[in-house]
Amino acid sequence: MRRILITNDDGVKSKGIGALTDLMRPYGEVTVVAPFEAQSGMSAALTIGKPLRLTELRSEEGLKIYACSGTPADCVKMAMNQIFSDKMPDILVSGINHGSNASIAALYSGTLGAAAEGTVYGVPSIGFSLASHDPNADFTASVHYAKIIIDKFLEIPPIANTYLNVNFPAVKLEHIKGIRFSGQGKGQWIKEFEERKDPYGFNYYWMTGEFYNNEPENKLADHNLVEQNFISVVPHKIDTTDYNELKRLEELWKL
Amino acid sequence: MRRILITNDDGVKSKGIGALTDLMRPYGEVTVVAPFEAQSGMSAALTIGKPLRLTELRSEEGLKIYACSGTPADCVKMAMNQIFSDKMPDILVSGINHGSNASIAALYSGTLGAAAEGTVYGVPSIGFSLASHDPNADFTASVHYAKIIIDKFLEIPPIANTYLNVNFPAVKLEHIKGIRFSGQGKGQWIKEFEERKDPYGFNYYWMTGEFYNNEPENKLADHNLVEQNFISVVPHKIDTTDYNELKRLEELWKL
Repeated sequence: MRRILITNDDGVKSKGIGALTDLMRPYGEVTVVAPFEAQSGMSAALTIGKPLRLTELRSEEGLKIYACSGTPADCVKMAMNQIFSDKMPDILVSGINHGSNASIAALYSGTLGAAAEGTVYGVPSIGFSLASHDPNADFTASVHYAKIIIDKFLEIPPIANTYLNVNFPAVKLEHIKGIRFSGQGKGQWIKEFEERKDPYGFNYYWMTGEFYNNEPENKLADHNLVEQNFISVVPHKIDTTDYNELKRLEELWKL
Repeated sequence: MRRILITNDDGVKSKGIGALTDLMRPYGEVTVVAPFEAQSGMSAALTIGKPLRLTELRSEEGLKIYACSGTPADCVKMAMNQIFSDKMPDILVSGINHGSNASIAALYSGTLGAAAEGTVYGVPSIGFSLASHDPNADFTASVHYAKIIIDKFLEIPPIANTYLNVNFPAVKLEHIKGIRFSGQGKGQWIKEFEERKDPYGFNYYWMTGEFYNNEPENKLADHNLVEQNFISVVPHKIDTTDYNELKRLEELWKL
């Protein structure tokens, strides 16, 4: 029986992880280990210096659901050590995230921090995200295509030390143009904070920001594909060494 | 006058950032924006859903020090938007971290999350870490070699979208064998949690763990170099796409 670990960064009660759990149950025994509360933007952060809790919420034939007090990466570490300690899961599936994780969002994404952590443990891992922050977003089209992608992923998983980042456009099924492999697009957030004054006259700051597209012309950048109603699939590496730059600097620095 | 942004993940009052600030002052105008408290293991995490504070702690000729209530990446975003908004800093220097950020630690490192964020803003960025968690660690040798590295970094900075990760062994100056460029070594933590019972009979978990070296034979892996008393320098990319795997899967999946 296939062993499937599911996690996310929006929290164990979010709609996206529910849709993903329903999709994955026919594929094997599902274990969900997800944060108690929303942990968006947590990247691969770990909880150091305070202890973690792990609570079983549900247990039935083929499905166990746990909530963990930590980050998405904590959830995966907790699952690997405390739940799957005797035998690793066969795959890790993260999401479906409420919000895009294309372009630079991959750097900050808790959904992908969890997928990266699965990869560190040698488990083929994939993250799914829908380009809508609506807590009640419609996951119908995402689930339809996630099934196609999961079938491929099970047949031909990514090589060791690489995980997949799938982003769905927030449109109806009939408007999706297809699935495309691509590279991580270049972009960044700008004008990131809204400054306010508290009732005592001191400043505080809300993170907001506008996305700035650094490659509007590159139609194969993942965020551009999603903008054009394609589903993007990007393989991301754990080893982020820039080997070309390594050679260049080694020659020029002459240490 | 050169504009220098300094940050870290151990907090604004740590010994390592003090040593780095003293080192950098002769190079230009220094602005420190660092977390109020320790933010180790925060990766590139951002604070979403609660507001941030920014407090000026010190202001004198050539040196300003601010504390920020957020993560290391928050500190950099806050600096770029609220302090350097008119003109970016010339360089970002993160650290000196109390603890190694070689091998897989780079994935979880707040020190490097901050360096990555500087790179996103187009600022040449570098992180320094000493392989000792002692809050009172001796930074003499680190500072000696950090100066040599900073001089090279200013002369020949890394290309756009790549930042540097420097790790110092925790030994005296005379025992350091030299500086070596290398790739990020493969490794992971195992046996990660210590399970305890609280006074009410419920389990809780402390993250601990043992480092497992996945390439003990590769003498050029950064963590092995540090183990052998070399200083390692690894260039890390913001774009973590695995382009070889992209081609392979694109051909095999036939979407």
